[in-house]
Amino acid sequence: MNYKDASLSIEARTEHLLGLMTLQEKVGQLVQLFGWKVYERNGGQITLTESFKEEAAQGKIGSLYGVLRADPWTEVTLETGLSPREGAETMNAIQRCAIEHSRLGIPILFGEECSHGHMAIGATVFPVPLSLASAWNLELYERVCRAIALETRSQGGAATYSPVLDVVRDPRWGRTEETYGEDPYLASAMAEAAVRGLQGERLDADDSVVATLKHFAGYGSSEGGRNSAPVHMGLRELHEVDLKPFRAAVRAGAKSVMTAYNEIDGIPCTSDPYLLTDVLRKQWGFDGFVITDCGAINMLVWGHDTAASPEEAAAAALKAGVDMEMSGDMFRAHLEQAVLNGRVDMAVLDEAVSRILRIKFELGLFERPYVDPERAARIIGSREHAALARQAALEGIVLLKNKDRLLPLSKDGAGKIAVIGPNADNMYNQLGDYTSPQPRQNVSTVLDGVRNRLAHAPERVLYAPGCRIKDDSREGFDTAVETAAKADVVVLVLGGSSARDFGEGTIDLRTGASIVTDSPHSDMDCGEGIDRATLALSGVQRELAQEIAKLGKPLVVVYINGRPVAEPWIDERADAILEAWYPGQEGGGALADLLFGDANPSGRLTVSIPKDVGQLPVRYNGKRTTGRRYLETDTKPSYPFGYGLSYTEFEYGPLSLSDSEIAANGSTRATVCITNKGGRAGAETVQLYIGDKVSSVTRPAKELKGFAKVFLAPGETREVTFEIGAEQLSFVGRNLEETVEEGEFDVMVGPHSADVQTVLLRVRGV
Amino acid sequence: MNYKDASLSIEARTEHLLGLMTLQEKVGQLVQLFGWKVYERNGGQITLTESFKEEAAQGKIGSLYGVLRADPWTEVTLETGLSPREGAETMNAIQRCAIEHSRLGIPILFGEECSHGHMAIGATVFPVPLSLASAWNLELYERVCRAIALETRSQGGAATYSPVLDVVRDPRWGRTEETYGEDPYLASAMAEAAVRGLQGERLDADDSVVATLKHFAGYGSSEGGRNSAPVHMGLRELHEVDLKPFRAAVRAGAKSVMTAYNEIDGIPCTSDPYLLTDVLRKQWGFDGFVITDCGAINMLVWGHDTAASPEEAAAAALKAGVDMEMSGDMFRAHLEQAVLNGRVDMAVLDEAVSRILRIKFELGLFERPYVDPERAARIIGSREHAALARQAALEGIVLLKNKDRLLPLSKDGAGKIAVIGPNADNMYNQLGDYTSPQPRQNVSTVLDGVRNRLAHAPERVLYAPGCRIKDDSREGFDTAVETAAKADVVVLVLGGSSARDFGEGTIDLRTGASIVTDSPHSDMDCGEGIDRATLALSGVQRELAQEIAKLGKPLVVVYINGRPVAEPWIDERADAILEAWYPGQEGGGALADLLFGDANPSGRLTVSIPKDVGQLPVRYNGKRTTGRRYLETDTKPSYPFGYGLSYTEFEYGPLSLSDSEIAANGSTRATVCITNKGGRAGAETVQLYIGDKVSSVTRPAKELKGFAKVFLAPGETREVTFEIGAEQLSFVGRNLEETVEEGEFDVMVGPHSADVQTVLLRVRGV
Repeated sequence: MNYKDASLSIEARTEHLLGLMTLQEKVGQLVQLFGWKVYERNGGQITLTESFKEEAAQGKIGSLYGVLRADPWTEVTLETGLSPREGAETMNAIQRCAIEHSRLGIPILFGEECSHGHMAIGATVFPVPLSLASAWNLELYERVCRAIALETRSQGGAATYSPVLDVVRDPRWGRTEETYGEDPYLASAMAEAAVRGLQGERLDADDSVVATLKHFAGYGSSEGGRNSAPVHMGLRELHEVDLKPFRAAVRAGAKSVMTAYNEIDGIPCTSDPYLLTDVLRKQWGFDGFVITDCGAINMLVWGHDTAASPEEAAAAALKAGVDMEMSGDMFRAHLEQAVLNGRVDMAVLDEAVSRILRIKFELGLFERPYVDPERAARIIGSREHAALARQAALEGIVLLKNKDRLLPLSKDGAGKIAVIGPNADNMYNQLGDYTSPQPRQNVSTVLDGVRNRLAHAPERVLYAPGCRIKDDSREGFDTAVETAAKADVVVLVLGGSSARDFGEGTIDLRTGASIVTDSPHSDMDCGEGIDRATLALSGVQRELAQEIAKLGKPLVVVYINGRPVAEPWIDERADAILEAWYPGQEGGGALADLLFGDANPSGRLTVSIPKDVGQLPVRYNGKRTTGRRYLETDTKPSYPFGYGLSYTEFEYGPLSLSDSEIAANGSTRATVCITNKGGRAGAETVQLYIGDKVSSVTRPAKELKGFAKVFLAPGETREVTFEIGAEQLSFVGRNLEETVEEGEFDVMVGPHSADVQTVLLRVRGV
Repeated sequence: MNYKDASLSIEARTEHLLGLMTLQEKVGQLVQLFGWKVYERNGGQITLTESFKEEAAQGKIGSLYGVLRADPWTEVTLETGLSPREGAETMNAIQRCAIEHSRLGIPILFGEECSHGHMAIGATVFPVPLSLASAWNLELYERVCRAIALETRSQGGAATYSPVLDVVRDPRWGRTEETYGEDPYLASAMAEAAVRGLQGERLDADDSVVATLKHFAGYGSSEGGRNSAPVHMGLRELHEVDLKPFRAAVRAGAKSVMTAYNEIDGIPCTSDPYLLTDVLRKQWGFDGFVITDCGAINMLVWGHDTAASPEEAAAAALKAGVDMEMSGDMFRAHLEQAVLNGRVDMAVLDEAVSRILRIKFELGLFERPYVDPERAARIIGSREHAALARQAALEGIVLLKNKDRLLPLSKDGAGKIAVIGPNADNMYNQLGDYTSPQPRQNVSTVLDGVRNRLAHAPERVLYAPGCRIKDDSREGFDTAVETAAKADVVVLVLGGSSARDFGEGTIDLRTGASIVTDSPHSDMDCGEGIDRATLALSGVQRELAQEIAKLGKPLVVVYINGRPVAEPWIDERADAILEAWYPGQEGGGALADLLFGDANPSGRLTVSIPKDVGQLPVRYNGKRTTGRRYLETDTKPSYPFGYGLSYTEFEYGPLSLSDSEIAANGSTRATVCITNKGGRAGAETVQLYIGDKVSSVTRPAKELKGFAKVFLAPGETREVTFEIGAEQLSFVGRNLEETVEEGEFDVMVGPHSADVQTVLLRVRGV
């Protein structure tokens, strides 16, 4: 018997290895440190720190977080950070140290951020998850996740901290961009695609990583949209909405779950045995490991105040079901003592350690701990991945308005295009949160895209920044208005920024020229920790739009941003509006494709766009009693969930059911024909909604229960069929169990949540 | 044995009577009809309708709602409604009909609205509950409730639909004015005072009425502040916050509870056996009866959609624990059939009927069913009650700002005072929701108050309305500015209006003169059903303030309104601000008392005043993890819970504990000395807050757990002592039971929630 013997079962190897471990070594497996702190650069030379080598040799480090991460938070820059090849080499060196210099040679689990791209220098930056969801294309998303996994694993990263499965209920929240939006069904479908894409067929493949489902649970429902704030929610809703995507992803085989910072109804998620053990393991059969969010155990002592000491907090987390602490000091410094003091049984510790070891065996880390730097350099940021990022950006961009078919613009002719606005040519504002610095040439801005498209007539493209995202300076207004005045159409690129200060300096608002300064201007108004008290555009952006609109030129507004923009004036006045979210490195090219009609918009909203922050919460699937109006406005959004236009037009045929009456354990099929009536190829996302007309607990009037993105040539007709069974008809009852009740259901199909045709389905008891 | 024999026990009488009743008569006891529909006026003659007489004779009417009610909703006016004497006579006539012409002679239970005064023509209109709570004077509030009960019962009203015990979490909600504010402890104390005041020592006294606790439960936490919208809340929080005042009031002996319209976590309150039976009756031992809100059973079929038919809804409500339906048709038309169909057991029906009969016996209605119209005419709107209303208004008004001691103004000298603003002279805008039309002379506006005070120099008082509450007309601006320009100080009376269209016409904004029109202008921006998407002043009121401020005159802003006003510009620019809420019929006199220093402000906020709607929720007792800021602003209010200034100054001595360490079942006393350091008599509300430093579920950093309003002459010192025991130290644990845990507690005392001194209390396990 030897745990190094790959011919033995993982269970046997785990048991054997565990039996050899000291208490210190066991605790070490549950410890994760900040990875970017274990190496140092001296010119071209990367060396490991002495303290790391010492701790690794003692078996005190089970995992490292973000060795490859670079961003202002880590203070790792494009210059000091690791190139694709260096990253792989460094990971190898670290792993070698752990394996060759520790008593038991247990490999380190490398965890890296992969929210929408491997978060490393040179890696492909895909659109943010809110955009990826807006594509309503699971196959595409799975391919994106496979590409991310490939890039990550090529450098040795074996676990990621995605997907984010939080169902967002309040867009004031800065992390809205990281979610799939407001719908639990769509989030569940995306979650399954993410798990398939990230984990692949086998975890020990060289293109698979462990998916971590986060944030467990309720994190998208924090009070006031404030990050990590308390969640006020009943258990039934928790199961029906927030837990639903997690359950789907666990069923899809996800191997890791991250606890949320927040409390629910007074119980911090990181020390909640109900969530972490009863629901996750006992009810759902989850067999992976649970990791905390970064510092979440600390929060039990300082914030939640449910633990009197770090030792008590460490014990409470472990006993509740946490297996690994992300980059905190609570397990590392206090868990050993907690075991010695009898606060935690050794059996509980052993169980957690076994879960970590098991994953390492499953990942094949004992057999193939090292990676090939050449391969990494080839794979990271490859052309194929850039093309995929372009496709994802294209499909995630939502056309919200297109008055008199202003779009697409003509590439021919002599008309001039003024590209104006703070997000027209700002690479980092386009990437979203959780991205590393990237070489300028890796990113295509809108200005780049338009210039490339009109490379044959460069004089047709004019540019002025106009203003910044969130400061009050109007000094660029004059130039912007003068520039726009010379043009035949204005493309005004507004929005937000989740870019932390990447040290790229700032720009001269009059000329648009870059300025390097010691204190670069931070324009961040979105992203983790940046919650807002309004949904209006920051700074003087609306004013810029108003000044430019006075010219009376055709006005295309492009939003590049991470949460819904509530700007009724722009909704009214702009001729066309494209919501691009943060479209990633290829966003500029994708937007140019859409602006000029080389591609046809097909994105659909996965969040409702409110008219005003004072309307919140606004979502399509509220209960029937949610209320119709305020004194000043109704409760409807500006644009509803599922909404999005195309350059072509789709016609829906009549909706029919294969059986209009079924048993509660039966199923039926809904069928509708869709025809492309316009002159361009395009894609329609056909959406299925179900409404249970009477039920023992209250239900939304409609809930998304299926969708199909169909690509249609001009004149083409396609039949779309949805299977309707328990998944579509059930809900979480009073006893927290899923149930299908007899009675009548509205089966609805249409292009978005506020435009459906309805047929009646009768369900009999069984 | 005879149920009419008053010497028998109520139980015996109830049982006997029940045994005599037909199914139809039983159902009749659970039915309540709209009372204002049972009489007709022909000149001076009031007659009962034939349909009423017929139904009453058949024993089909157990209760009538609002026979005395008059308001635009009932379409009963000052002219068509019942004077105090007529009201009593009509109630007698109705009762006589029921008793003398029905088989069993069961008296009718008359229910009337008493939110802040008996809602009848001529009755005393006290300040709204939000104002009554702001007085922090339980003795005063109990006297107010006794006066209301006396007026109500004098006309035969035997049940009221107050107190409102909803803990308000979102001031967008139009019913904020009807609540005691955001704190469950204060609401509990007020609830107990209300029950004592309304129900008195005995229900069969001629000055007692049954108190109805509403709305059970969670109604103050509706989604988006939208009336009756779903409540998202966990059970623990529900018990700890929303149920707390109900439990206190049940312990104080309340005999009736009203179900809320809303659902909680998918379960409509009106059909929730957990709330209505398990918690209310089994856990708390409630022995009164449960009534629905008006139409709440209908909502089970049309809205919640948890019942497929009216019959199903009626059965579900009854089985859950409802005993009487307020003015709906569901029990009346469908309950008999539900019993016959076996949907409801007769025993369940019998239990509900018994509860109604028992209350009627307890009220002495069988023995003394009639009232004395002479007495009613004497009591209703008496001078004593007006004086009490004046005192209540005085104590409920909160001084928020008083720069350079601008207030009080001098009554002497020659300085002119411009009284400006839409609420300066509008009687109905001052009364709040749930009030009847009143003769003009019954109500004192701010303009009335100031004119009365300066009756010796009428030329010193100038007036202009300036604008309306919520329309956009600026036609009164010029006159207002010209008027203000002639004055030495401006009193600008802004705010809101919960006045439904009382048909009083409108005013000419230029002259302030009344205009009678066929389509009077509705200025309602508050009250039931009027939820708002902003907390800013409606209409052009802020603009009016800005225009007037340009004059540079000393500016006093008085708010008369029903929910927090978020107007940072006014907070910054006004010299003095008085928040009067809706101060009732004596509000103008009370404000004049305060403006001129005949009284000293002593009100304290019971709701936090946010800076902006985008900050919501804002409350003082959020959890420690609630978050500190948004991009644009922090999460703090403009004025915190408990805040309020005085014309004098109070100094706090050191806080001490009689025992700084106690057992978990023990108690200690916190003592502090308060000294009036200023030159005027005044009242300070000393507030005790407790913070459990570490606990098994998360706790707010501070929670109100005691208060004492002390009246101090200049130079006077008073020692204030708070008992600290289980009530102060306990919380609702994971198992939903109240518990005191060992550990450290912060004991905090101070003038408001953001200004306290702290001592440490240690609690040992027992």
